[in-house]
Amino acid sequence: MSATTGTDTGEQPGRIMSGEMAEQPEVLRRILDQGAPAIRRTAEQIAARNPRFVLLTARGTSDNAALYAKYLLEIGLGKPCGLTSMSTTTAYGAKQDLADVLVITVSQSGGSPDLVASTRAARAAGAITLAVTNNPDSPLAAVSEHHIDVLAGPEKALPATKTYTAELLALYLFVEGLRSRDGAAAQVLPDLARGVLDRRTEVRQLAGRYRFAERMVITSRGYGYPTAKEAALKLMETSYIPALAYSGADLLHGPLAMVDNVSPVIAIVPDGRGGDALRPVLERLRGRGADLVVIGTGAEVEKASAGFALPTVGVAEEVQPILQILPLQLLAYEVTIARGQDPDAPRALAKVTETH
Amino acid sequence: MSATTGTDTGEQPGRIMSGEMAEQPEVLRRILDQGAPAIRRTAEQIAARNPRFVLLTARGTSDNAALYAKYLLEIGLGKPCGLTSMSTTTAYGAKQDLADVLVITVSQSGGSPDLVASTRAARAAGAITLAVTNNPDSPLAAVSEHHIDVLAGPEKALPATKTYTAELLALYLFVEGLRSRDGAAAQVLPDLARGVLDRRTEVRQLAGRYRFAERMVITSRGYGYPTAKEAALKLMETSYIPALAYSGADLLHGPLAMVDNVSPVIAIVPDGRGGDALRPVLERLRGRGADLVVIGTGAEVEKASAGFALPTVGVAEEVQPILQILPLQLLAYEVTIARGQDPDAPRALAKVTETH
Repeated sequence: MSATTGTDTGEQPGRIMSGEMAEQPEVLRRILDQGAPAIRRTAEQIAARNPRFVLLTARGTSDNAALYAKYLLEIGLGKPCGLTSMSTTTAYGAKQDLADVLVITVSQSGGSPDLVASTRAARAAGAITLAVTNNPDSPLAAVSEHHIDVLAGPEKALPATKTYTAELLALYLFVEGLRSRDGAAAQVLPDLARGVLDRRTEVRQLAGRYRFAERMVITSRGYGYPTAKEAALKLMETSYIPALAYSGADLLHGPLAMVDNVSPVIAIVPDGRGGDALRPVLERLRGRGADLVVIGTGAEVEKASAGFALPTVGVAEEVQPILQILPLQLLAYEVTIARGQDPDAPRALAKVTETH
Repeated sequence: MSATTGTDTGEQPGRIMSGEMAEQPEVLRRILDQGAPAIRRTAEQIAARNPRFVLLTARGTSDNAALYAKYLLEIGLGKPCGLTSMSTTTAYGAKQDLADVLVITVSQSGGSPDLVASTRAARAAGAITLAVTNNPDSPLAAVSEHHIDVLAGPEKALPATKTYTAELLALYLFVEGLRSRDGAAAQVLPDLARGVLDRRTEVRQLAGRYRFAERMVITSRGYGYPTAKEAALKLMETSYIPALAYSGADLLHGPLAMVDNVSPVIAIVPDGRGGDALRPVLERLRGRGADLVVIGTGAEVEKASAGFALPTVGVAEEVQPILQILPLQLLAYEVTIARGQDPDAPRALAKVTETH
């Protein structure tokens, strides 16, 4: 089987991914210091047009960032939102009436042809278009009316890490801007992120338990749900462990049958209403004898088989996802190294995915 | 570990699910003959209010039916759509402006408290509300302005089968009604469904290959994508095999790394634009040496490791999902029987899931 990596991984496996994960505190600081004013202006211009409905378009890791934005927009702004089924435009040529609709396209590279085509079609159909990318010179930025640069710097490892947290923070500041707010809750993040990333030994210990895992279930609710999806994607594309992400409620509607004492479960437990809503699900899982690892509030980590307690004091629930994903990125990395694979270069993947 | 089944499974494992799958041709005929006029009237009343956006709310199997409706609405009507993140209302109390918004809630039982609460909130927020359920006396039907009865008759097995295809057909006729069309393309379905369900021996042969499968990837695009998701759910909740569903495009953005010659792939290949868009993905999968089983067009079945050819002549692409899921329901059933488990009563599940 041939691998199409497109990346020179150097001598040490995972060196590139490791370096990029470590840059995250600095990237977050850069967005807060240098990126925020432009994001605020873009938000003001779009707020003035008063969109009624928001559609979010993305794939892969960026799709999980888009889902985070959906929660922010629905909860904070009361805007009905949808995630685009892109093939309705690119394969079926659907002609939509998008007057009053804000279409946000999120993409690390800004280069995937289907994202460019669907954004162009949305603009022609009357939408206000906004691209959120890590490349202001990308085709996607060019076809969009507005553009937000997430300022993460070049990303070389195939698994996206720093562009994910950068997208989350940029989208948070944008939605705050739509609400005429300044996003002050994010100021604590760079320092806290550094503290979390420094706790690598704890993550390495957790990784040991998944060395021989055949599968994994990852669950959360509310603001933590995009983290569950992104953690599953990261684990799959690096370690190849099939990781299934469900909202806690969906887990009870079928997939719970799959969970038993040989299927490890990772629960992301936000400190806030998402965590509260997840609690009955955690009880069901404990009742089934599941191996439950909690990433989140210390109180729930105590009750679990193992876990990683995140700082929550003074951290608003809506910015917690920017910290939650960090131990899970490290976990994907450590599990992959433990399994003797190279996290920088998963087999079969290319950095810019050319879907049409 | 205790199982909470709530169902008397009788002496023969899978007897109830088997009987309900076999009823599907008759249920489809009933909807076309007895249900269609009321569905048409509901559609006309709602079309007269000219909704600008559509939100779809559901969980589990019904969520896959809702996704099918999203494709119909976007492609056929050009209405921007979204799937609801229910916790934004039920956990976070989001207050949305839903004037001009049609909210469609799909639920077999119409009894899940969170669906009832979110539909009530949507109606209070100005939405036009429509419940699509198998129970006209349900709390969900009561709180919704409009109701469509999918007429599937009581469903006793825990894995939903006949209510899924009934929801698909009812939603198809509803969207056709919104377009002032009569849904004539569905008339062929009851007879074709019977023909597919009669080919049980073929499915039993396919099932043999998954007897010892540790995991499974299921993919499709466009109108076939909801089928991929529903097939994955059905396989997981009956056989407990972790089955991961991806749209063909999303598969290339990461999870492809997980596919190799020990990860079986099932591809649902519609005859039409969804199948055309999937073709490059099938080539990539064959290039990686994947064990590829195709459900769909005969030409693609020929090129695959194995498969199940569906009738496509005279079957419009948008109604093909109502046939596509049938061999996959049978497959979930046969794999489960082969593994010595009872498809009627997956461990841990109750028929009406009480999520809040």
